[in-house]
Amino acid sequence: MTLDAVLTRIDIDLPASLDRLLDLLRIPSISTDPAYKADCDRAADWLVADLAGLGFTASKRPTSGHPMVVAHIGDAGPHLMFYGHYDVQPVDPVDLWTRDPFAPQIEETAKAKVIRGRGAADDKGQLMTFLEACRAWKATHGALPGRITVFLEGEEESGSPSLIPFLKDNADELKADIALICDTGLFADRVPAIVTRLRGLLGEEITIEGPTKDLHSGMYGGVAMNPIRVLTRILASLHDDDGRVTIPGFYDGVPEIPDTLKAAWDGLNFDHCAFLGDVGLSHLAGEAGRTALEQIWSRPTCEINGIEGGYTGDGFKTVLPSKAHAKVSFRLVGQQDPHAIRESFRTMVQSMLPADCTASFTPHGASPAGQMDTSGPAFEKARQALSEEWGVDAAYTGCGGSIPIAGYFKTYLDMDAMLIGFGRDDDQIHSPNEKYDVECFHKGTRSWARILAALT
Amino acid sequence: MTLDAVLTRIDIDLPASLDRLLDLLRIPSISTDPAYKADCDRAADWLVADLAGLGFTASKRPTSGHPMVVAHIGDAGPHLMFYGHYDVQPVDPVDLWTRDPFAPQIEETAKAKVIRGRGAADDKGQLMTFLEACRAWKATHGALPGRITVFLEGEEESGSPSLIPFLKDNADELKADIALICDTGLFADRVPAIVTRLRGLLGEEITIEGPTKDLHSGMYGGVAMNPIRVLTRILASLHDDDGRVTIPGFYDGVPEIPDTLKAAWDGLNFDHCAFLGDVGLSHLAGEAGRTALEQIWSRPTCEINGIEGGYTGDGFKTVLPSKAHAKVSFRLVGQQDPHAIRESFRTMVQSMLPADCTASFTPHGASPAGQMDTSGPAFEKARQALSEEWGVDAAYTGCGGSIPIAGYFKTYLDMDAMLIGFGRDDDQIHSPNEKYDVECFHKGTRSWARILAALT
Repeated sequence: MTLDAVLTRIDIDLPASLDRLLDLLRIPSISTDPAYKADCDRAADWLVADLAGLGFTASKRPTSGHPMVVAHIGDAGPHLMFYGHYDVQPVDPVDLWTRDPFAPQIEETAKAKVIRGRGAADDKGQLMTFLEACRAWKATHGALPGRITVFLEGEEESGSPSLIPFLKDNADELKADIALICDTGLFADRVPAIVTRLRGLLGEEITIEGPTKDLHSGMYGGVAMNPIRVLTRILASLHDDDGRVTIPGFYDGVPEIPDTLKAAWDGLNFDHCAFLGDVGLSHLAGEAGRTALEQIWSRPTCEINGIEGGYTGDGFKTVLPSKAHAKVSFRLVGQQDPHAIRESFRTMVQSMLPADCTASFTPHGASPAGQMDTSGPAFEKARQALSEEWGVDAAYTGCGGSIPIAGYFKTYLDMDAMLIGFGRDDDQIHSPNEKYDVECFHKGTRSWARILAALT
Repeated sequence: MTLDAVLTRIDIDLPASLDRLLDLLRIPSISTDPAYKADCDRAADWLVADLAGLGFTASKRPTSGHPMVVAHIGDAGPHLMFYGHYDVQPVDPVDLWTRDPFAPQIEETAKAKVIRGRGAADDKGQLMTFLEACRAWKATHGALPGRITVFLEGEEESGSPSLIPFLKDNADELKADIALICDTGLFADRVPAIVTRLRGLLGEEITIEGPTKDLHSGMYGGVAMNPIRVLTRILASLHDDDGRVTIPGFYDGVPEIPDTLKAAWDGLNFDHCAFLGDVGLSHLAGEAGRTALEQIWSRPTCEINGIEGGYTGDGFKTVLPSKAHAKVSFRLVGQQDPHAIRESFRTMVQSMLPADCTASFTPHGASPAGQMDTSGPAFEKARQALSEEWGVDAAYTGCGGSIPIAGYFKTYLDMDAMLIGFGRDDDQIHSPNEKYDVECFHKGTRSWARILAALT
């Protein structure tokens, strides 16, 4: 049978496919840091070469930032577009890594065999599951089924500044019948999922400036306004005692989820104690009276992602600094308008400034939440294929993260997207010691082979 | 006349004395940073050699931290002890310096001729005024008047951890009739001062820890407690809306100053608009209803000197960090007990921790406020000498900074101290581009020659 031969080929080829992934992981393609620009370029070249080797017409496409990789194969049948990203998160604090983040290795841990390295799960390991499925299909049958477009981005971890212009400029080339996006996780350790709800993301960097220079706190302490004090006061006011965000109008467009969906989520028996316990926590810190899945999948948040001001080195310095900075982000749901929230946030900050202090802002992305229409037959076919591979019913779930690409595909290419990924909660994406389980990589590759068979 | 010849000698020798100071300023003796340990040692060696050249019996005395310099000369007459410190503040943010902080130079600015470099005013330039006065006296008369002990510390900018043990262990050797401390400023541009009130200083470093590792804010945002959020909430609560510190018991032992003193301070016509205007500010930020001099000289403060957490590099990272840190210091007055306040601060922080968060603390110094007894004849003699040099009545003032050494001399050596210094408000001590006016250096040296004549 067509599919069985492909699956067998995937099993046999696993060691070689892991070697290929390790090779890609060695390239430090950190998109947010300009120092790694050449490395991002190198990762794109690597993928173009790999896709060309599979028979794709593949090219690296320049943007004003990091390049896109676009590849096509096939000329008849259903047209699938696959999306992933080759850029990775920064690696700091690097001293918490047990190995060089860019000297990846297969490790045996107490729990599983894992691929350890930055990008192993987010997203190089995931995108390679699709390429390996294509490779096995090609090796078995000499050709791929249907028509496939592969579209890989290099700026996903830095706000995707080039994405929308690129989609607009290349809409005809990129549009397919449906998009397949591999940048999400399993619902539970061995329960696959298709994500149908994604939170939006809004980022703001804020700088409070007071005196024109750093001051000695003995001379000016008390009499001069300290920008750190102003900043902490503003940031501390962003949540009320029940964990709700206090920015005026923040909850405009936030829907209550239907009772049926709430019941379905409750039926998933999500173990929030284990979820929190994995990272040393025991209490839900979000809005009072909401379950963990409700909080993660259906409620907006505000988080301070970074703060800095004054003397932060060893020892002590009695300085009163001229400036203080923070990076704040918001996860959005429903019809929340990121631009309106940005304005309201800035107005609120300005209204809290004391005399002698000014605030300036740097925007970092603004994407609304997304919700998929699962009524088309493709969703159910893919869910069946996933269920067969993993031996349990695949779930339609939400996702706390923000993968704005799905919304952009809808807006700019009028194309629905299926978010299917194989990450696990303990993958430590965005943290030191990121890993991707070999089992996830292997069964993820097999899952894509099944989905290709189901959709073409 | 004895004194006139010394003053003439000081005038003639000014260029050479500036060269000697530049030489000392080239040594980057940053005491708080372990990377500069050898440089601190080198600065001590430089001073031992210079003092030995003046005929002092001088030695470098080891401690568990940076060494002390102790030197003696003379065997009869009044015994004066001079104190200064050879260590300097860190130089960050180093990109705001117009020159290498340790490549000092004499610069002509629009306002004055200045000595530019780290430590120029705090405290190498100041301590050298005394050594240059001794040098001129020796050159003129072949010997110094009375008995003089010079005691120079290398840990003043890092909390003086070795000071008290050293004072205890060497009390007999160090005790003199009175101490002269040169680490303060003029009251106004050409109005000299003897500081009779000093604020104490208490430093605390606080670390809030939540999850056991950095988390992805998409996955854990909202549901997991963010240590930066906890830290900002705690820090924002340290002041009320009137600028008063909210730590329970903080104002215990804070006296109201007598009406007569308040009237004397009002009579100094301190221009707080110019004081604030120099650093781009226009509003008094301290306790409501207090004049600037009251705030600086007689009221306690709480300042956040540094804060750090999460991602603070270029770009954006949607991380929820495991830890967040802050450095907080308190200026103390009257009978405030630094140890009681430390305990109360820690208790308050602990009481504000939500579930899943812990706080840890690192102490950085704890010195009470000090107040001099000015009733002895030495104070009035020194004030007269200063008034003669500067041509205006010298003032008895307070000081917002914390120079705990005066209190330690009283406690451990039963010795009063006179705080006489020549810094100006725009010296930018503890900030980039620190400077010391050549006029201050020159007239400071002449002032010490007059004080030596008056007190011996």
